[in-house]
Amino acid sequence: MKNIGIDLGGTNIAIGIVNEDYSILKKGSVPTDSHRPWQDIVKDMASLIEKLMKETGTTMDEIKEIGIGSPGTPDIEKGVVLYSNNLGWDMVPLREELNKYIDKPVYLDNDANCAALGEFLAGAASGLDSAVILTFGTGIGGGVILNDRIWSGFNYAGGELGHVVIKTGGQPCTCGRNGCWEAYASMTGVIRQGNEAADAHPESELAKLRASGTKLNGRNIFEVAKAGDDVAQQVVDQFIFYIAEGVVNVINIFQPEAVVIGGAIANEGDYVLEPLRKYAKRDVFCKQVKLPQIIRAKLGNDAGIIGAAFVGDYQSKKTM
Amino acid sequence: MKNIGIDLGGTNIAIGIVNEDYSILKKGSVPTDSHRPWQDIVKDMASLIEKLMKETGTTMDEIKEIGIGSPGTPDIEKGVVLYSNNLGWDMVPLREELNKYIDKPVYLDNDANCAALGEFLAGAASGLDSAVILTFGTGIGGGVILNDRIWSGFNYAGGELGHVVIKTGGQPCTCGRNGCWEAYASMTGVIRQGNEAADAHPESELAKLRASGTKLNGRNIFEVAKAGDDVAQQVVDQFIFYIAEGVVNVINIFQPEAVVIGGAIANEGDYVLEPLRKYAKRDVFCKQVKLPQIIRAKLGNDAGIIGAAFVGDYQSKKTM
Repeated sequence: MKNIGIDLGGTNIAIGIVNEDYSILKKGSVPTDSHRPWQDIVKDMASLIEKLMKETGTTMDEIKEIGIGSPGTPDIEKGVVLYSNNLGWDMVPLREELNKYIDKPVYLDNDANCAALGEFLAGAASGLDSAVILTFGTGIGGGVILNDRIWSGFNYAGGELGHVVIKTGGQPCTCGRNGCWEAYASMTGVIRQGNEAADAHPESELAKLRASGTKLNGRNIFEVAKAGDDVAQQVVDQFIFYIAEGVVNVINIFQPEAVVIGGAIANEGDYVLEPLRKYAKRDVFCKQVKLPQIIRAKLGNDAGIIGAAFVGDYQSKKTM
Repeated sequence: MKNIGIDLGGTNIAIGIVNEDYSILKKGSVPTDSHRPWQDIVKDMASLIEKLMKETGTTMDEIKEIGIGSPGTPDIEKGVVLYSNNLGWDMVPLREELNKYIDKPVYLDNDANCAALGEFLAGAASGLDSAVILTFGTGIGGGVILNDRIWSGFNYAGGELGHVVIKTGGQPCTCGRNGCWEAYASMTGVIRQGNEAADAHPESELAKLRASGTKLNGRNIFEVAKAGDDVAQQVVDQFIFYIAEGVVNVINIFQPEAVVIGGAIANEGDYVLEPLRKYAKRDVFCKQVKLPQIIRAKLGNDAGIIGAAFVGDYQSKKTM
């Protein structure tokens, strides 16, 4: 049997037919074009599924179930996206609509949870019983898997690990609070910190790069630091410490077997992971026990497809 | 059948025979006197159990199991206290030792987890599937119950919610980090903040109280605030905001059905709970879904006995 995983993003809908061993038989994508009616988006999902099945000679009998990872807050029992800021959605019944085209069980979860589940089943955290997967991009996404199940709260709105205040009264966050981890340890955070440092040190290479017309971003701030600019290095060191503050918080809270680091920051590999491990060793509350592993995400964008494909089997149910 | 719950504290060992409906048939306590050999402490546990059984006419056949809530980090599978700073213990095999006196299944968990379980089974969070129980005292203790099971991490060292940094680079915490929630929102935190305010405002009633020879504590700071002293009121308002910062963090992370507030601060009732609820409504990340209840713990010290008595049935097991 095979499952179908749908990773619904703000830009693209990525869909894969996924084998029982979590390998992707075939995947494809179409633009989301999120401004159109959601009915049209679901119709495109169904068409892409049909196309992928045709191309691989997969029959409907071979499909066990379909999973959708969507931005926003899902009602996993009803298969409805309650609310998505990203897509501008309110109460969109994805399960019911997709079932108009394909008569298979359809499961729905948050996209970050699906990506986390993908890493848990087939990626960096494969073989473990618990893991917290963090994705560092414009914001910080989190997926929490405990006792082999996604934990997302009684109202499916949990796991918002980027919105843990680490500096009370600090930088304004998009969520309306001040001092969220996301405001410091995301790409948005490091770019702000880089610009502040460039303002304060016009003699630095970082300031010169910016003066040449290049916008600062995570990648070039790291590059200038590695090339020897002290100012950029301080920005990077402080940024890694901010990441560590939240990672140590996650460990003190959850003590999962692994903390998996994904997103742009994961590309820096041990340059970031090694200091994180040192901070964790130094700063965790309980130093007498084995520490969680801090490891790099493995699957990239495929995590969302693979996780969505199997999400129906890993959602927390009240009957657990 | 009845269970026996042992709440092992730094000062006293409290033990109760607990009925299936979670009512306490009879309870008693003896001093811990933690400087003596742990073997003597366990011997006293066994004697107190025997005494309570005799006094109630309970026979060994009626006892199903025994649970112990201990300070420190337990190995719940082996029934060993790995480490307790509070008791000065290292690798103490409580289950094995107690089994020398009583041949019944003995389960072990952290004391905060047991107290949380007590509130979950028979107190404020009774009837729910998930709850986070917070105890505000000298520090902040946390117990996390998800899907009807205690979550304490793969190494039993999780749920240290007091050691989530809410002010990076802030006040030193006993754990070695700076800016932990516990350093701001515990009794220790409010007393420090009260003393700082009294230093800064010698004209305040708060400063006058201290000058009269009274040491500031949580209770008298609240009393002076309620009597109309602006300086004390500012301390209390800021303190409640610090509590809220961590409570909102807990909600964004876990979205449990209830956040239960225990310890000294719970005695303030709605004076503290109402502002917490307002902050939560304003500050949580996802405002489109039902919020967790923020409620007061009910059981006081009995929570630890009741929770310990049933802890064996609620521990997360890998087979879940």
